[in-house]
Amino acid sequence: METTQVKTLFRETDKYIDKVVHMSGWVRKIRDQKNFGFIELNDGTFFKGVQVVFDTNLSNFEDVAKLTIASSIIVTGKVVKSQGGGQSFEVLASEVKVVQKADAAYPLQNKRHSYEFLREIAHLRSRTNTFSAVFRVRSVLSYAIHKFFQDQGFVYVHTPIITGSDAEGAGEMFRVTTLKLDKPPRKEDGTIDASQDFFGKETNLTVSGQLNGETFCAAFRNIYTFGPTFRAENSNTSRHAAEFWMIEPEIAFADLSADMELGEAMIKYIIRYVMEQCPEEMEFFSQFVEKGLFDKLNNVLNSEFGRVTYTEAVDILQKCGKKFEYPVQWGIDLQSEHERYLAEEHFKKPVFVTDYPKDIKAFYMKLNEDGKTVRAMDLLAPGIGEIIGGSQREDNLELLEKRMKEVGLHPEEYSFYLDLRRYGSFPHAGFGLGFERMLMYVTGMTNIRDVIPFPRTPKNALF
Amino acid sequence: METTQVKTLFRETDKYIDKVVHMSGWVRKIRDQKNFGFIELNDGTFFKGVQVVFDTNLSNFEDVAKLTIASSIIVTGKVVKSQGGGQSFEVLASEVKVVQKADAAYPLQNKRHSYEFLREIAHLRSRTNTFSAVFRVRSVLSYAIHKFFQDQGFVYVHTPIITGSDAEGAGEMFRVTTLKLDKPPRKEDGTIDASQDFFGKETNLTVSGQLNGETFCAAFRNIYTFGPTFRAENSNTSRHAAEFWMIEPEIAFADLSADMELGEAMIKYIIRYVMEQCPEEMEFFSQFVEKGLFDKLNNVLNSEFGRVTYTEAVDILQKCGKKFEYPVQWGIDLQSEHERYLAEEHFKKPVFVTDYPKDIKAFYMKLNEDGKTVRAMDLLAPGIGEIIGGSQREDNLELLEKRMKEVGLHPEEYSFYLDLRRYGSFPHAGFGLGFERMLMYVTGMTNIRDVIPFPRTPKNALF
Repeated sequence: METTQVKTLFRETDKYIDKVVHMSGWVRKIRDQKNFGFIELNDGTFFKGVQVVFDTNLSNFEDVAKLTIASSIIVTGKVVKSQGGGQSFEVLASEVKVVQKADAAYPLQNKRHSYEFLREIAHLRSRTNTFSAVFRVRSVLSYAIHKFFQDQGFVYVHTPIITGSDAEGAGEMFRVTTLKLDKPPRKEDGTIDASQDFFGKETNLTVSGQLNGETFCAAFRNIYTFGPTFRAENSNTSRHAAEFWMIEPEIAFADLSADMELGEAMIKYIIRYVMEQCPEEMEFFSQFVEKGLFDKLNNVLNSEFGRVTYTEAVDILQKCGKKFEYPVQWGIDLQSEHERYLAEEHFKKPVFVTDYPKDIKAFYMKLNEDGKTVRAMDLLAPGIGEIIGGSQREDNLELLEKRMKEVGLHPEEYSFYLDLRRYGSFPHAGFGLGFERMLMYVTGMTNIRDVIPFPRTPKNALF
Repeated sequence: METTQVKTLFRETDKYIDKVVHMSGWVRKIRDQKNFGFIELNDGTFFKGVQVVFDTNLSNFEDVAKLTIASSIIVTGKVVKSQGGGQSFEVLASEVKVVQKADAAYPLQNKRHSYEFLREIAHLRSRTNTFSAVFRVRSVLSYAIHKFFQDQGFVYVHTPIITGSDAEGAGEMFRVTTLKLDKPPRKEDGTIDASQDFFGKETNLTVSGQLNGETFCAAFRNIYTFGPTFRAENSNTSRHAAEFWMIEPEIAFADLSADMELGEAMIKYIIRYVMEQCPEEMEFFSQFVEKGLFDKLNNVLNSEFGRVTYTEAVDILQKCGKKFEYPVQWGIDLQSEHERYLAEEHFKKPVFVTDYPKDIKAFYMKLNEDGKTVRAMDLLAPGIGEIIGGSQREDNLELLEKRMKEVGLHPEEYSFYLDLRRYGSFPHAGFGLGFERMLMYVTGMTNIRDVIPFPRTPKNALF
């Protein structure tokens, strides 16, 4: 007999009323009376479980009544309209086959557990309401990103994870090696002989796929990356992980304005997609994780994102009369308190801040005619601050080389990147979206460790 | 004026005939006569380029006539039915704006280049026909995989890249470290003090997401991974890369038979999807890369995959009268020559070989009642040999622990994995698909270095 999934039962209930179904899954809750009992059966396909009613008609009633939480079972029974309040239907079991009675030491008994405790059992936490919601939304959000770009013909590019360059010096890196740490080969002068390493040189884990991505932009016009990136920063905060996923689109014959339009369209699309595909999960987050989540997200969906230059933003901050911990003056990197004031109190919606001072931005950003600002943009959103950061790229070979030298980079080490400016240079732009940051924004979860299946942080690489 | 993409022009030609369009892109070919000339304009959105005709009506005719290959231009012109043979339409330019005239040293002039040469300019090779086809198909094939699983409600899980365990000892691993190789901290006995490393212990790059994936299978029923995996094997062959992408689905309440059905459905779906979405690219591969490609792929699409046990397969090989380099007897690991004989000459279609001797398979595979074979399967396909490998998993705690000890693993190091057998164990199965291997199969490309944007192989981590 074919197995019916719980999701199907919920989505097409009418079709199944008074029909006999066959289901398999795990006991989430169980309570038994003298002659009958209830099991909440979760089969993994849906946020909610199905109520299974069993009674002494079962030949193995005693065994079923004594089942433990997490036990795996196969149920045959009739779907009927529910007598009770909350449920619209339940299943009257004619057979409950016990696949395995779970060990009673199962740590997820029916009580509230702290997120901290659940991180220590990350291999089991997806079986709780909160984490089943988080990780299903993670999956759907991933797909929304692919769908958004693929529907518009963007080419997905797998940029390398192991890299021989240090990209734009964007952060501390993990070294990747097959050398024996115990006794590495050394050159005559005593330094490590990296030429004997696997790749014949020193290699690290990537911090960004952008530079490689740009080479594909020069071939396919519109491209995106979506892959893991790494930071070896010893930051033990709720917003830093050593391993996280990033999305980096890059568009050709496009300026900063087109870049912002793309970012706005993407953010709206993926939020809407998750809200449509995961209504039960989003309802749960709204009730139990972040009050006001729907207001926050609907405000994003329904507003036209603001646009303001960095110089204007500094002016707003200086004149607003609010006292900030970090004083505001032209040239500073905006702090979280400034970003949130702009998005939450001044604009009251997501806002792009553009044209930052060149000295606080990366070398590859296009210099404005004023010679002191670059075509950069950060999107600041209420409730989180910066959510994406991007720029139009410097497409002038001479200016780019000059800028590299100014910041202490060696152009000859970036010859592949400079080639893009030699052979058919073109205006192009892109941005980076930290996937976990977006997921936190959509779910209301506040610690990055709680949106990554098996998070990697300083002193922690469990599982 | 809005930019029209080349893909749109080809797909909806009739709509644009006699209309003026605005396009941007790069010069792929150019030839000029005295008073007019032709440019093949490629804008990255489509495999083919558009023929642009220009003449002395252009104010900058002399400059345009002297454009170099790869130069970036913006063209305005009228779409007209073509007089010539090959093209169905062309664009009569009223304006050609030169964005940048490419340096004449551009290495991709119009002649055949060897794949070896093109690997050295991997940042430019996507601008050739072959590699634009390969990497567009790579993107579409990736999406086909996501779509196949997401449409059926599978949950996509990002398993960790940096891992503290050595998985199933599936291969040599890269070490990930922030210790100074020059002077690593040592314990009193002189050995490396890994507790001072970033994660407080020794960590490596993952070789498989399966074990982590199984934990999500126990929560979401049907899941898949799709991410980068690594092997530090010093193998310089056309089929080995140090960094490659892998897909690993895992399904709950499912046996080996369901696993094979899933594998067959997936392979057929993704091949069909690519053939439908990339007809021009596939036609190119069929003409220039692998003669008979369509026959090969259609045979996969139209056949019901075979099923044969390892024991039966050994019997077939022993009786076939063919002389193999490696003699066949029960217990050996099948070699490529055996696999290809079975798929190409005996079955003449893809065939699942099942129930391999336990000694040549991984510890986690479910032991058959005969006590000597396991519920493993390899899918062998004509023209390539093994393409996916999977198994039903051992779900019995005692048998699994016993097996781990037999192969020299320490069960206490796998307690998270064993927990899945303690708390609601359930029959489940899964498989692994090497993404690049599948891409090679679909495109006919024969070297893995030519299907990865920036391949990593021994002594090579360019770009």
